[in-house]
Amino acid sequence: MTRSELVANIFDKGSFLCIGLDTDPNRIPRHLLKYEDPVFEFNRQIIEATHDLCVAYKPNLAFYEANGAEGWISLERTLDIIPENIFTIADAKRGDIGNTSARYAEAFFQRLNFDALTVAPYMGEDSVTPFLGLEGKWVILLALTSNKGSADFQMLRLSDGRPVYEAVMTSAQQWASTDQLMFVVGATHPEKLEDIRRIAPEHFLLVPGVGAQGGSLEAVCKYGLNKDVGLLVNSSRGIIYASDGEDFAQRAREKALELRNQMREILDRTFG
Amino acid sequence: MTRSELVANIFDKGSFLCIGLDTDPNRIPRHLLKYEDPVFEFNRQIIEATHDLCVAYKPNLAFYEANGAEGWISLERTLDIIPENIFTIADAKRGDIGNTSARYAEAFFQRLNFDALTVAPYMGEDSVTPFLGLEGKWVILLALTSNKGSADFQMLRLSDGRPVYEAVMTSAQQWASTDQLMFVVGATHPEKLEDIRRIAPEHFLLVPGVGAQGGSLEAVCKYGLNKDVGLLVNSSRGIIYASDGEDFAQRAREKALELRNQMREILDRTFG
Repeated sequence: MTRSELVANIFDKGSFLCIGLDTDPNRIPRHLLKYEDPVFEFNRQIIEATHDLCVAYKPNLAFYEANGAEGWISLERTLDIIPENIFTIADAKRGDIGNTSARYAEAFFQRLNFDALTVAPYMGEDSVTPFLGLEGKWVILLALTSNKGSADFQMLRLSDGRPVYEAVMTSAQQWASTDQLMFVVGATHPEKLEDIRRIAPEHFLLVPGVGAQGGSLEAVCKYGLNKDVGLLVNSSRGIIYASDGEDFAQRAREKALELRNQMREILDRTFG
Repeated sequence: MTRSELVANIFDKGSFLCIGLDTDPNRIPRHLLKYEDPVFEFNRQIIEATHDLCVAYKPNLAFYEANGAEGWISLERTLDIIPENIFTIADAKRGDIGNTSARYAEAFFQRLNFDALTVAPYMGEDSVTPFLGLEGKWVILLALTSNKGSADFQMLRLSDGRPVYEAVMTSAQQWASTDQLMFVVGATHPEKLEDIRRIAPEHFLLVPGVGAQGGSLEAVCKYGLNKDVGLLVNSSRGIIYASDGEDFAQRAREKALELRNQMREILDRTFG
């Protein structure tokens, strides 16, 4: 999906919500276990109940890999039913030497046809560039993550005074355009967003951490919005596990609707 | 596998060779394509021809994921035939927020029963610790990788003068003992190994980059060896793709034997 298509979808839907499909067989409602592929059935009902409210889905690869080959099949089936106008993100945090990153690109962009892949920056340029170059495919590079451990290395100060995550963001902008590259910036660091928008004014940011991890949507939007919106705000557990009963999809819809309504209000207020 | 078992295997075999199973369906000999699972058949013949010469196998997950569910099955079948006394490393370079890393740990340590997993450090402590705590299971943390991009972030100087990779190695030693934690240090940086042994004198190092990537075994051993050997030196393409004909397994054995003989000579010279 191109940047202009993504931006158009955001304004059409009044939403920059990304729903994380962290589908854990141990947490899904018990009545789904009678299905041949309970993970797929859970995703199917969640997608049916929420697809008009979000602009992106983000399956978290770990939850599928934990089920081995079966998990991979659940993931393929899920991708097949996500409507075409919804941006799909493989939350995989890959990154390896060039010939290996090229194989991951094949797995996620060609075999599974995801629009975007999250990538870890530690191995540098030649670990990231193999993911670039396919029209409409995106790298979403980890910059400042939502977890406590983001303080361990990402926030360390370099000899020139910049934090490590700033060096990552500045270097990566030399490798890819704003039509191919987004950054992960956790909602748990809203105080850093003003600075991050100075480093990367044009880029889309994928913002996890609203909901279960405690981040605030208003705080993220205050400094994070740019002229193209420039934000995909993700919620996973707060939406998909809103209920563990038979009403799980309806309750997920209610949680997604709350966020969509807040987003629509913010978009109306900001873009008129 | 425990550290003492690994060390015993190294001295028994006169080898600290790890063979990387970067098995690419497009590079394996054409005559294998008649098999139902050519990737598994390739691995099976490579393992049969080399298992007495190496102490570890390291499947590279990207090459299996590129084949989707089928690739996952090839991987499971491969794990099943690796002899019990050989250390198995999932070269996956995972690392995510805690609840997600826990799922990856389930996938690699429980479902697939690998002994070790390579992990990317960018997200810090709570992304790494979920991989610890299972007896005989290891985290192999990226420190200074073998690729050109290792200069982009890993070698940046912090305000206290240390390079980023040193901060990673020093912090990680507070999270895990030398019985649970190794570091990846590329053979393409032999000049850094003396310094790395100052930072981590006791740890095992997984050293890729000998062979196709140009690293030298003698240079690695000069500073890398410690009192327990402390090295697993990996070669992937240089061994498994030594020939693309019907003699591929025999030729792989010859390449592995060359390295094993060099290693045995080094061990004899060093440990008498």
